[in-house]
Amino acid sequence: MDFLTTDPDVLDGYRFDQAGFCDAGMPRALARPANTAEVAQVLRHAYEERIPVVPQGARTGLSGGANAIDGAILLSLERMAEILEIDEVNHTATVQPGVINSVLSRAVADKGLFYPPDPGSWEISTIGGNVATNAGGLCCVKYGVTSDFVRELEVVLADGRVLRTGRRTAKGVAGYDLARLFTGSEGTLGVITEITVALRPATEKPLTAVAFFATAGAACAVVSEYVSTGRRPSLLEFMDKPTVDAVSAYRDLGFPDDVEGVLITQSDRGAAAPDDLAAFAEVARAGGATDVLVASDEAEAELLIEGRRLAGVAMERLGPRLVDDVCVPRSRLAEFVEGVAAISREHGVPVPCCGHAGDGNMHPNVVFDSEDPDSVRRGQAAFDAIMALGLRLGGTITGEHGVGMLKRDWLETELGEVGVAVHRSVKEAFDPRGILNPGKVVRGR
Amino acid sequence: MDFLTTDPDVLDGYRFDQAGFCDAGMPRALARPANTAEVAQVLRHAYEERIPVVPQGARTGLSGGANAIDGAILLSLERMAEILEIDEVNHTATVQPGVINSVLSRAVADKGLFYPPDPGSWEISTIGGNVATNAGGLCCVKYGVTSDFVRELEVVLADGRVLRTGRRTAKGVAGYDLARLFTGSEGTLGVITEITVALRPATEKPLTAVAFFATAGAACAVVSEYVSTGRRPSLLEFMDKPTVDAVSAYRDLGFPDDVEGVLITQSDRGAAAPDDLAAFAEVARAGGATDVLVASDEAEAELLIEGRRLAGVAMERLGPRLVDDVCVPRSRLAEFVEGVAAISREHGVPVPCCGHAGDGNMHPNVVFDSEDPDSVRRGQAAFDAIMALGLRLGGTITGEHGVGMLKRDWLETELGEVGVAVHRSVKEAFDPRGILNPGKVVRGR
Ligand SMILES: Cc1cc2nc3c(=O)[nH]c(=O)nc-3n(C[C@H](O)[C@H](O)[C@H](O)COP(=O)(O)OP(=O)(O)OC[C@H]3O[C@@H](n4cnc5c(N)ncnc54)[C@H](O)[C@@H]3O)c2cc1C
Ligand SMILES: Cc1cc2nc3c(=O)[nH]c(=O)nc-3n(C[C@H](O)[C@H](O)[C@H](O)COP(=O)(O)OP(=O)(O)OC[C@H]3O[C@@H](n4cnc5c(N)ncnc54)[C@H](O)[C@@H]3O)c2cc1C
Repeated sequence: MDFLTTDPDVLDGYRFDQAGFCDAGMPRALARPANTAEVAQVLRHAYEERIPVVPQGARTGLSGGANAIDGAILLSLERMAEILEIDEVNHTATVQPGVINSVLSRAVADKGLFYPPDPGSWEISTIGGNVATNAGGLCCVKYGVTSDFVRELEVVLADGRVLRTGRRTAKGVAGYDLARLFTGSEGTLGVITEITVALRPATEKPLTAVAFFATAGAACAVVSEYVSTGRRPSLLEFMDKPTVDAVSAYRDLGFPDDVEGVLITQSDRGAAAPDDLAAFAEVARAGGATDVLVASDEAEAELLIEGRRLAGVAMERLGPRLVDDVCVPRSRLAEFVEGVAAISREHGVPVPCCGHAGDGNMHPNVVFDSEDPDSVRRGQAAFDAIMALGLRLGGTITGEHGVGMLKRDWLETELGEVGVAVHRSVKEAFDPRGILNPGKVVRGR
Repeated sequence: MDFLTTDPDVLDGYRFDQAGFCDAGMPRALARPANTAEVAQVLRHAYEERIPVVPQGARTGLSGGANAIDGAILLSLERMAEILEIDEVNHTATVQPGVINSVLSRAVADKGLFYPPDPGSWEISTIGGNVATNAGGLCCVKYGVTSDFVRELEVVLADGRVLRTGRRTAKGVAGYDLARLFTGSEGTLGVITEITVALRPATEKPLTAVAFFATAGAACAVVSEYVSTGRRPSLLEFMDKPTVDAVSAYRDLGFPDDVEGVLITQSDRGAAAPDDLAAFAEVARAGGATDVLVASDEAEAELLIEGRRLAGVAMERLGPRLVDDVCVPRSRLAEFVEGVAAISREHGVPVPCCGHAGDGNMHPNVVFDSEDPDSVRRGQAAFDAIMALGLRLGGTITGEHGVGMLKRDWLETELGEVGVAVHRSVKEAFDPRGILNPGKVVRGR
């Protein structure tokens, strides 16, 4: 297999994804196949020899899902990066898994079409990785997550057989929905080698509004209130004070000093957008907003959204972080955000919190000092306490980042005994020898 | 088990669903449990004694999925028919499986909310059955099918264990998407005992337009053309001449005599609806429509849509039918409809064809004389030829009615060897003793 390398220096560059504080083992080899046949070749070999295989996209994951395992073959799909077809009549695109999200998004936009799933990592993550993690993003609040766009998959199974599943048509119920089962399975059930996604017609350029609040709870209550009115914002994001402070420290965008909660929303409904934003402003003011800014043009809109965009980079500057990804029912958002602030105080670690508020999906960023064992311990305790809080509020431990290695124990808590048992039997049905990303998502028996 | 009966007369009334020409066996008993614990009791017993169990909703299915099997316990969920919760803030409803679709739809409409999946059978079919078949309907072209609304399920497994899976939050990727796997599994993987669905805010009353064409192909070409413009109709239905003739014979709605294809569309975009219909009229005229009628008010709209609504009853009058349910890419619709007409001629059986054109999902109704063995044979040959045509055009054998018993062989053709093998291992993982609706969807080994 000439697409395989064992050079330790090369291997070293492929051991980790972007998850904080997540172990990785020493792989035996890196395979970078150029096509499905080569992927199948790797899996046939691995199956026979019972060698673990770790599928990898761009390793931008935040849960250690793509991290190396001792003795494993790392199977990077990065060389399979071709857009195979854009069907402008049926509104579908067919791609290899290594295509970067932004490459696809721009290619379809050139044809007046729209691929909505837009994780913050869209410029660097692959469609294969997006499907394997069922990635979300900013416009999911209106358009749905990756799985809502997956139509047909080609998957290489554990023993090297090649399965086509799903369909290109808009509807279909012939057999079990295996395409959905592979979506979000984080490389533990098969290796995705081709993907057909649904596209939508391009939308109008969005208009943007920002509202400032004196308490985080008030901002969250407005989220729930606004969405209940029936408006469907194309974006509805929240930032708490520590997040705003981090952004302001990175770049002064003129955020007021005394703000404890910020909401940013967009509407892409063209002529109806100003009406949406006026309704938002009204709900926000009734909910105690201290100020509401509505962008009157695209340039102003860009400025308003910039704060949310910079949150990631700004937080990176704060030091090592563990990023939570809890999703709660919208009605419980205020309790959740207040609970996160309490956890931050209790454990003595900063936890700036922002996220996709319209979906109830929040990213508390637990910041700690990796040189100080006590800080690390407190950080990890806070990270866990936040997931426990999410579950208590009727939520889930992961809205979009996945389980990987980081949340394996917590997954068992969320699923319960019967849920874990069923997950294990599904895993065994697809991967009887336990070679596909073993130890990720579900533990072996 | 006092909710169980073995009275042959009662059993007889529960042996068949609505599929034409589909066998049913002689069941041993009918269980009508009132709650999850009783469902679990039935399954524990059946598991121990290796007795087949056939879950049943309202038996409105069109593929024999709910038909009795020799020696089986029929497990009707009809008594579990309570709406447990409508959450007006988070836009979800939680129901028992026996709730009739229209009961739920009306209950949420009373609260200003909207449950979109609307199979033609919405007044008679159950939400449990809708989930188990992943039912579609008229507004799916805009809002999606049942699976797009399923959030959380309670499922009793083959051995009587109770699984909760999925989640109530808008997003979530904790573990495999088992809720989707159960959706559309036609009672072969578990018995659904509780369902939480997502709701939407109510939409505006739709406006309606109808276009008449001199050829069926021209009508179909307009479907593809109109959807490519980026408009998202809330309904887009097609009827061919034999369907129109059947409707006219049933009730004279003033359809022109010389029409070979009819399109009916709706827009529920409120103030933007007239613009949508004007755009439709323009595309239809450019595509050769001989006439386009746009309803100027609700009453007129009702009249225009009445024709499509009556198609079902009107066709029942034609005699015994086998209803196909092929879904093809929209761009292949014209070829499909022309192919169906050719098959009708070739086999000498009438095949009125109508369906959810916006999704490419067509229902050719193969009509035959059940007293005449040759007519039956020709009918069955036509039914098969239509599925073969659908597959040749890149489509699927079933867009929404499911596989049941009727399309089991065809499913194997569609899935291919690897697909069938994977289906079998999934089936075995959930149903190791093969007691859950055996012989439906996938054949045992
Ligand atoms: C700055 C930043 C912002 C982010 N924002 C978001 C966000 O908004 N929303 C969100 O959901 N995520 C976000 N993420 C997380 C991450 O980008 C996503 O999880 C992304 O989908 C991972 O894609 P990838 O190509 O990097 O996959 P990887 O990280 O390489 O792999 C992810 C998982 O998928 C598996 N996998 C990858 N490719 C395949 C394949 N072809 N077949 C089978 N399994 C495969 C891997 O084994 C692993 O378990 C962000 C990350 C960063 C660094
Ligand atoms: C006039 C008419 C119009 C129709 N229009 C449409 C349409 O537009 N779109 C469409 O998709 N279908 C349509 N159908 C078909 C049918 O109504 C749907 O398939 C419906 O979803 C079946 O619901 P039911 O409650 O009758 O289920 P049943 O027919 O009783 O069962 C259907 C299948 O689901 C299983 N099942 C039922 N309940 C459960 C449960 N709780 N747990 C596990 N498995 C279960 C059964 O075993 C069976 O395999 C139509 C049927 C008729 C008669």
